[in-house]
Order: sequence, then C-alpha cells, then structure tokens
Amino acid sequence: MVHKYELRVRYSDTDQMQRLHHAAYVEYLEVVRIECLRSMGFSYDALEKSGYLLPVSKLQVKYKQGARYDEVLSFETRVEVLSEIRLVFHSAVQVEDRLIATAEVELASIDANGHRPRRMPEPLLRALEEASV
Amino acid sequence: MVHKYELRVRYSDTDQMQRLHHAAYVEYLEVVRIECLRSMGFSYDALEKSGYLLPVSKLQVKYKQGARYDEVLSFETRVEVLSEIRLVFHSAVQVEDRLIATAEVELASIDANGHRPRRMPEPLLRALEEASV
Amino acid sequence: MVHKYELRVRYSDTDQMQRLHHAAYVEYLEVVRIECLRSMGFSYDALEKSGYLLPVSKLQVKYKQGARYDEVLSFETRVEVLSEIRLVFHSAVQVEDRLIATAEVELASIDANGHRPRRMPEPLLRALEEASV
Amino acid sequence: MVHKYELRVRYSDTDQMQRLHHAAYVEYLEVVRIECLRSMGFSYDALEKSGYLLPVSKLQVKYKQGARYDEVLSFETRVEVLSEIRLVFHSAVQVEDRLIATAEVELASIDANGHRPRRMPEPLLRALEEASV
Repeated sequence: MVHKYELRVRYSDTDQMQRLHHAAYVEYLEVVRIECLRSMGFSYDALEKSGYLLPVSKLQVKYKQGARYDEVLSFETRVEVLSEIRLVFHSAVQVEDRLIATAEVELASIDANGHRPRRMPEPLLRALEEASV
Repeated sequence: MVHKYELRVRYSDTDQMQRLHHAAYVEYLEVVRIECLRSMGFSYDALEKSGYLLPVSKLQVKYKQGARYDEVLSFETRVEVLSEIRLVFHSAVQVEDRLIATAEVELASIDANGHRPRRMPEPLLRALEEASV
Repeated sequence: MVHKYELRVRYSDTDQMQRLHHAAYVEYLEVVRIECLRSMGFSYDALEKSGYLLPVSKLQVKYKQGARYDEVLSFETRVEVLSEIRLVFHSAVQVEDRLIATAEVELASIDANGHRPRRMPEPLLRALEEASV
Repeated sequence: MVHKYELRVRYSDTDQMQRLHHAAYVEYLEVVRIECLRSMGFSYDALEKSGYLLPVSKLQVKYKQGARYDEVLSFETRVEVLSEIRLVFHSAVQVEDRLIATAEVELASIDANGHRPRRMPEPLLRALEEASV
C-alpha cells in the first residue's frame, strides 16, 4: 500500500536561502505518518491514550532539491514492519514531477509509563503487516 | 530590576524575507523569561515538578525593525506582578543600539493537575514583587 | 466577510504541558492569513514576487483555554484596512464550541527592496476594503 | 579536532511525550555546526554573503534516549571532508554521561546564485581538512 498526502510549504518554515528549511521536513514527515495511520483506521492520539508511545528511533533524509514557499509537497509513503516493536516509514517527496527528498523514519513502540519496549497492539500490528505487502 | 540576556538569531528561525520570523521572537522571549527566573534563583523546571504551570495568557509584540541571521539580540526584561496568580514580563529587544521589538507577555499561575488558577508559591511571589520595584 | 479555516494541532507543536505551544498559534495564524488572501483571489507568493512584503508589525494573542494534540482548530477571520499600508486580521480560534484564543495581527506593506512603506497594490486594497465591510 | 558545544533544551521544543521533539535536534545540530565553523575562524554568515550556500544534502540521526526540558545537551562534533564540495559533521549528543543521540549531517557547497555545486573557498577547505585529521 502506498499512502499519498499533500502539504503546502509554510512561510514560517522557509529560511533565508528561500527554501523549506531542512528541519521542517522532519515535522512534515510526522504529520504524514499520522495521516497514514489515520487512513488505515488508527488514531495516534488514541494509541497514546491507551498507553503506547511511538518515538522516532532513527531518521534519514536525503535532500535532492529545494522546495519553495507555497509549493505543494506530495508525499508517497510505504510502511515496513521490522518487528513487533519496530516499524519504518519510507517516503518520497515530490513537487509536481520533481523528486525533492526521500526519507526513512524508524519508530519504536514503547510503554507510555516505563518507556520500555512494548509489542504494538495486535490490530495495529496486523494492519501494518498487511499494508507492508 | 532589569534582567539582561542575549540570544543569537538562528538560521532555522529566519524566513525568506531574510529576517527573523515573527513567531520565533515568541520562542526566544520564553527562553528569556526562564533565564530571568533562573537569575532570581528560581527554576521553572522545579516549579512545574512541584505542581505549578505558568502558561501564557496574553501576548503582545510590536515589531519595529527586522533582525537578521547571526545578529545578537539583547533583551532587557522587567517583571510586573499583577496579582497572586498573574504576572507580566516586559521586554525590549535590541540589536546593538537599534530597538527591534518590544513585548509584553502575561502568565497565569495554574495547578498542574486541575489547570485551575493557583496562587504562586510564596517565595516566588515575594521575589517577583521585590524585582517589580 | 468572515473567512473560515481549519487546522489540526500538530504533534511537534505540543509542549510538555500537553497543549499546543503558545508560539505555534502565531505560525498557524500566518497560514490562516495566507489562506484568507487566497480565498479572496490573492496569492501572497505572487505579491512578494511582484515586489511587496507584508511583515507583521504588531501581534496580540489572548489565550483562553489550551488546545490538545490532534484537535481541529476552527479559525474565523475578519480583515480590517487601517490605511493604504496597514491592515489587521482579527481571528477567533475555537475547538468545537469552546473559544480557545483570539488574535489581532497587524501587517505593514513595504517594498521588497528598500523595505520602505509602500501602498498596497490597488486590486488588493480594493478587495480588502470590500471584505472589511 | 573535536568541537564541543552545549545547548539547553528549550520548553518550546518539548512535546507531549515530555521529551525534546526529534525534529528539534536537527535545528540544534545546525546551531552546533555554525558554532563549530566559528570556532575555526569562519562565519557562515560571511560565507553566504560571499556567494556560497551550504545546504544539507543528507541527514541521519539515531535517537538512543530522550532528553528532557532544561537539560543541557553536550555536543561533540568532528568534521570530515568528503570532497571539494561535500563535508560531513559527525556529532554525539550527551546529557551528563548518557548518550542521547548520534548524528551525521552532510552539506554540499553550492553557488548562492545558480545553486550549482561550487568548490568551497580555499581557506575554508584547508581549515576543514586540517580539522578532519
């Protein structure tokens, strides 16, 4: 499954190079992951409320070209389940037909209280595995 | 008492106008308030841990001139106690001898659990009142 | 004319009080102003490219209640023309039927090169004046 | 050469997990790189003014543990020159003696006007190569 989502470059996220600042991609990618989960029927908010956290454990972004203010970024995202406690989101970011960036963001499922690794809830795990195919 | 503090304009906080973005001032002002409290012997972190929160209830910023990347902003801050649960920080922001902005930020003391108004701790209140003079 | 727009609270914009950080409202308000102009047929991007900048000259936000992660903020915005070079956006921010914040943001029209005050382009000025009614 | 620098976790950079948000590390790392260059006698600001840009071309961060509000992050950074147009900053981030994160950030030297690859200025290149040893 490939999840598609669009976000527009915000003025406050540009820098004096007149491009989207590289750190802002990391925030946008988070919005995209959350919308990707929502499209699969899962609310990250509900997940946290039920005692799970999914902090980022690893992040890699390759920047190919700059993005400009007000341009619409198109994200295509695939999920990969690494284990019962780890998953990766692979995203490609385009503006029209230009590839702007690619990213891999790995998350670890932990317990909201003790912050120890915690097997993801069964329904989420199953849905992610299906989406991984 | 006037508290003085300096912060350098970060690259990530510039925008494509090639100036410090107006929202970033609000973050810088928060750093300054926290350092102002620290200079009076109070840790905002310890305050939160002891059950108080000081959220911003009102914010006013007047922007006079733009600030540029890598410039050093000099903040001069005065505290004013409005009541046992309200205080205001008045700041003037300069780059060298140019006035860049002025700000008034009002905070309300609330309980960390119920989020109800809560009289500030006695030692903090007394110190703020002394500093207000 | 009242412009309506919705934005969802981003995870990266929450703070350890578990509420939308007060500085993030300022960024959201900017997105809203730009969409308000777009709804009137004006692109802020095109405006900048034609030699105008609209930096914020004054900002006031009153925070009534906190907003939480993933909540949808509803912005209702009215424009007021102060002069040929100054305008104010008045916004009310709600989550469902709770008033979260109100804001007034004043912008000044300046020349993109010299950064001197510059009368707004005639069509924009006329449209804003009509919308002000 | 190992460059050392400290930054305190800002309140506005925490999230509702009550940890420093993962995107904020990326901004802190940029401050550290700029201070690393400054410690070697180079101003990134002056570099831009003389017609060079150093955008990030690749970014990798591994998050080991969370950092909390008001904690002081200690960055140890080494520079590696990949070519006449590419360099990498390797950083380790600690809070006291706990390793919080490691990061590799690759920059590409480009021309400020055409955004084409451009050999770094001779003095910078030489200083970076010496520091790489």
